[in-house]
Amino acid sequence: MSKSMVPSQITVTIDKIPHFKWRERVQQKKNSIGFQKMRKLEVVSPVPADIDIANSVEPLHVSQIAKELNLSPAHYDLYGKYKAKVLLPVIDELQGREDGYYVVVGGITPTPLGEGKSTTTVGLCQALGAFLDKKVVTCLRQPSQGPTFGIKGGAAGGGYSQVIPMDEFNLHLTGDIHAITAANNLLAAAIDTRIFHESTQSDKALFNRLCPADKEGKRKFSDIMFRRLKKLGITSTKPEDLTPEEVTKFARLDLDPASITWRRVMDVNDRFLRKISVGQGPDEKGMVRETAFDISVASEIMAVLALTTSLADMRERLGKMVVGNSKAGDPVTADDLGLGGALTVLMKDAINPTLMQTLEGTPVFVHAGPFANIAHGNSSIIADKIALKLVGPGGFVITEAGFGSDIGTEKFMNIKCRYSGLKPQCAIIVATIRALKMHGGGPQVVAGRPLDHAYITENVALVEAGCVNLARHISNTKAYGVNVVVAVNMFSTDTEAEINAVRSASLAAGAFDAVLCTHHAHGGKGAVDLGIAVQKACENVTQPLKFLYPLDFSIKEKIEAIARSYGASGVDYSEQAEKQIEMYTKQGFSGLPICMAKTQYSFSDNASAKGAPSGFVLPIRDVRGSIGAGFIYPLVGTMSTMPGLPTRPCFYDIDLDTATGRVIGLS
Amino acid sequence: MSKSMVPSQITVTIDKIPHFKWRERVQQKKNSIGFQKMRKLEVVSPVPADIDIANSVEPLHVSQIAKELNLSPAHYDLYGKYKAKVLLPVIDELQGREDGYYVVVGGITPTPLGEGKSTTTVGLCQALGAFLDKKVVTCLRQPSQGPTFGIKGGAAGGGYSQVIPMDEFNLHLTGDIHAITAANNLLAAAIDTRIFHESTQSDKALFNRLCPADKEGKRKFSDIMFRRLKKLGITSTKPEDLTPEEVTKFARLDLDPASITWRRVMDVNDRFLRKISVGQGPDEKGMVRETAFDISVASEIMAVLALTTSLADMRERLGKMVVGNSKAGDPVTADDLGLGGALTVLMKDAINPTLMQTLEGTPVFVHAGPFANIAHGNSSIIADKIALKLVGPGGFVITEAGFGSDIGTEKFMNIKCRYSGLKPQCAIIVATIRALKMHGGGPQVVAGRPLDHAYITENVALVEAGCVNLARHISNTKAYGVNVVVAVNMFSTDTEAEINAVRSASLAAGAFDAVLCTHHAHGGKGAVDLGIAVQKACENVTQPLKFLYPLDFSIKEKIEAIARSYGASGVDYSEQAEKQIEMYTKQGFSGLPICMAKTQYSFSDNASAKGAPSGFVLPIRDVRGSIGAGFIYPLVGTMSTMPGLPTRPCFYDIDLDTATGRVIGLS
Repeated sequence: MSKSMVPSQITVTIDKIPHFKWRERVQQKKNSIGFQKMRKLEVVSPVPADIDIANSVEPLHVSQIAKELNLSPAHYDLYGKYKAKVLLPVIDELQGREDGYYVVVGGITPTPLGEGKSTTTVGLCQALGAFLDKKVVTCLRQPSQGPTFGIKGGAAGGGYSQVIPMDEFNLHLTGDIHAITAANNLLAAAIDTRIFHESTQSDKALFNRLCPADKEGKRKFSDIMFRRLKKLGITSTKPEDLTPEEVTKFARLDLDPASITWRRVMDVNDRFLRKISVGQGPDEKGMVRETAFDISVASEIMAVLALTTSLADMRERLGKMVVGNSKAGDPVTADDLGLGGALTVLMKDAINPTLMQTLEGTPVFVHAGPFANIAHGNSSIIADKIALKLVGPGGFVITEAGFGSDIGTEKFMNIKCRYSGLKPQCAIIVATIRALKMHGGGPQVVAGRPLDHAYITENVALVEAGCVNLARHISNTKAYGVNVVVAVNMFSTDTEAEINAVRSASLAAGAFDAVLCTHHAHGGKGAVDLGIAVQKACENVTQPLKFLYPLDFSIKEKIEAIARSYGASGVDYSEQAEKQIEMYTKQGFSGLPICMAKTQYSFSDNASAKGAPSGFVLPIRDVRGSIGAGFIYPLVGTMSTMPGLPTRPCFYDIDLDTATGRVIGLS
Repeated sequence: MSKSMVPSQITVTIDKIPHFKWRERVQQKKNSIGFQKMRKLEVVSPVPADIDIANSVEPLHVSQIAKELNLSPAHYDLYGKYKAKVLLPVIDELQGREDGYYVVVGGITPTPLGEGKSTTTVGLCQALGAFLDKKVVTCLRQPSQGPTFGIKGGAAGGGYSQVIPMDEFNLHLTGDIHAITAANNLLAAAIDTRIFHESTQSDKALFNRLCPADKEGKRKFSDIMFRRLKKLGITSTKPEDLTPEEVTKFARLDLDPASITWRRVMDVNDRFLRKISVGQGPDEKGMVRETAFDISVASEIMAVLALTTSLADMRERLGKMVVGNSKAGDPVTADDLGLGGALTVLMKDAINPTLMQTLEGTPVFVHAGPFANIAHGNSSIIADKIALKLVGPGGFVITEAGFGSDIGTEKFMNIKCRYSGLKPQCAIIVATIRALKMHGGGPQVVAGRPLDHAYITENVALVEAGCVNLARHISNTKAYGVNVVVAVNMFSTDTEAEINAVRSASLAAGAFDAVLCTHHAHGGKGAVDLGIAVQKACENVTQPLKFLYPLDFSIKEKIEAIARSYGASGVDYSEQAEKQIEMYTKQGFSGLPICMAKTQYSFSDNASAKGAPSGFVLPIRDVRGSIGAGFIYPLVGTMSTMPGLPTRPCFYDIDLDTATGRVIGLS
């Protein structure tokens, strides 16, 4: 899970914010031009609970949000009053239009509390749209429903920088994750059932069932079968023309049960599904197999949704997903199982991004939410592409990347931008004084425990020491050819001296600018400086996009390029990793980009190595592939892909006011 | 699964239909008054494939369908262009309005091919709305997505009597089943996790985690905890006031793992989940448990959705669902686990019925689809209630009940109407010559195999003999105080003599009327006679609704009343059934209605006993409860609650035309 947490206790009011020099640029405009119907936010101090703020604002009808983006009702499907799916053909319609500026939001290496990346993303857009007269679209990931009922609660931003309605954002949304669950599990069911049927039928019987005779006794291949025939190099187009050997090759996938990587998924925190045995019923005749459930957002289909660029492209990616190998070592795909088309049908509405709004009425696309370790942790290419056309030249699309920039931004550049062909002008790095102090040697930060004294009193030395972490994020990000703006997500306990230390260190490390933000307490008004800095950064970009590695590097060369950017002096491959790299290379998948599955709590593999560790050897324990989505993912550590519930989950507080229909207790 | 099949080979055209005397009443009106914007259907012979018919008609925007029902945009939420959720407050708004006529569609004991109950339901509504100027709403169940990709294909009716868009009807719809899956599985995750946490924590630690101290060190109960406190008879309202014994009682649910009846669900045909072991991961410390997945529509939450009458009622039912017993034998509920509120939140949109349309533009509510054996197999009370107000006096609500009337209609009357307080005026029994021949002693009918000669050539004697089955369905149904109309769903091979035999037998058995229908081949035009008969039946009802048994009968007395209606001479209870009946009686649940889980292929427990068997002893193997939904269900046989996929599932043919976005190959 990669949802950002927000500071829970900001009690400063805007009048009490110290007037640092670099804050003086603020020019608040009273009336917006870009979005005429922006909502005026009345902020209260201390900041109320997220749900109370969210409920205090009546959202605009989403058709009004759409209208501000020049979308007509034919361009979208409504899902209730506050959500709409913007339809894919909009891209074609706007093809000739120039894109707006493209800004990615990353962060420094976070504490377990999160440093407010989503909140900053939303706050910045509220500033650009509601205060700086810019066309702007926020592009966010859809959160998993699991954690909403577990520990973390919702993920719609926080304070006065939120996406609303908050309950609709966090629950079901427009059904995309449910569609992924359905598609993922249909494929899983097809795998086990196919192995079962192959074990009980002769080649001939299997073939005859796959190509049943019609009333005239004629057999034919269905369209999807021609994909497998082609893969096998069989040129006959009629079932009766196949040789017995070809019949066997075609009909028998001969999946090696031990090689199956495809697992079932569920959008619930259910730790008891982390390791299970299936097929224990008497009708399955002893074909018991050990497997597991992941949480739905860990499904490869989620990564496909995030990386696809069109219906036709999605159809191909879904069909190419590899579920395991044949006993001869050949990859078996969803298309081999006859499923690429049906999976596409299940995902046909999910491909359209969902339009929502911020507290200040600026438009938000919520679309796709892949894991940020075993997947690339970025929202969808499609949403960004549509948004860039909709805001047009001079407008802004602000998209968030999961975890710290070593993970989220790196994958944004080397995987997402590689597939989209888009080039960002600016990358934001969100930092907090709290996290920098931790990197400077402050005591451990543990979720649920009170913060150490060091974090709530001035300690400039700790901050300065911690800036090595920020500096490496800056230089790594800058290397892509973008301008880097540091956003300091301010807490009430932060002091001027501490914040000035961050600014100095940022500029010294090559940042284009470093800006203080109070959007949690003040909404867009608190991120106006950031908005201005981002605009300048975008207008002054001079370099082309430079990837960290070319695709024609070997798998190991690519891994090593990324490892170097972490500060590693070398890479150590386990025997299993070596075997897998050899296999993927042999199978022809070595040209895919690399998606490192590494802890977000350190540049290194060791979560407790804070700051900017270097000279370590990065261990690669295993290497896996999401072939359909389009990347190879080396496992640096063991990644949990199914969260659990605590003794007292959030759901104890969640209820429906049955008189008003309003959700209560969602945090 | 209880989806009706439709005859696949009707090639007769309307001009070729023999002019039976009882067909002469047909009066086709050229212009509709009730629904001004009805679509004129152009029928082709032979009848094309369902998907081709569905795709040949451009659906009306659903707001137009809503407008015809006098619904304003505030009354519904759009889900795209062709689906809308009609919002629950409509019921309150229309409270003073008189209901329309209420008609339930059941059937005779079917062949494995199905006798066209859904198709007849849709065709009748097309007749009433598009040809007879009546306000009419069709109320259908939402089909499971599992079989859509398995053997059966879709369930939107067939031929020229269908709900459109057919792909949207069969896939995702407005997410209700996905919401049920999410809610069901959150509860399942909470059960296993709670047992795990209780096993590793002291009473005190457990209690302190359930009621954590806030910043001032104060503990408090969340709202939902007061439900458990009340159930336990604990009157203290502050955690610190509980005695140590009360702390233990409150915090320790002490679930007996062997007693857990709650299973996980998935809307996929996945036979390998019929029996599984969970908790095999190292972190779960050996707490392995054998359990299973059901298909989602078998979830008790689906039955709750179908039987609830308001948000507040749904909240109570969800909280009262029993998941198992404590080791002391007390029922443990979703509210005991702290989940009744969160489940309601997950189901808050699902409670609103989905509005769609037929091929001829008449309105359809699709809402809930509980199993017809382990649950009551009827669509939702809420949809029927809203529809009855919307059509108003003189209008018609046609609702379908699953399986033959021994199962579907019986449960419609004794469970659904008991909870809704609604009274139907007319019950339709759909019959086919094919099924009647089978009951008369014809050869076995097997899905996928060609029909025996007996079924496609005239054989009046077989039909006459088979009418004993129809006659018992008629007399059983008539006993509820409704008028019974028999609808003969005509096949091209049926002859006038055969059909006249059915009519005579129907009238002799007490039917109000018996009518020939050709709606599969002709749309509403082919069911105009049926519409006229139904109208007369509704206008001429004389009796009050009479249930088969009063609720204050014992569980056994209720079971025996139903068994007698099947023709049984007695009931034989297994030891396990006796034990369960005793337990439910002791737990205070004996006042619930009974939902028999029996084969649909015979009045008896023996699927091969066709016709009207009598004198048999009905075996009850086990007795279970859906306490939240509100019924006890005795198991007459073993019921499969998770279908499987065949060697060549339908999904081989299903794909998306990526150029047009259109679904192809869905049948």
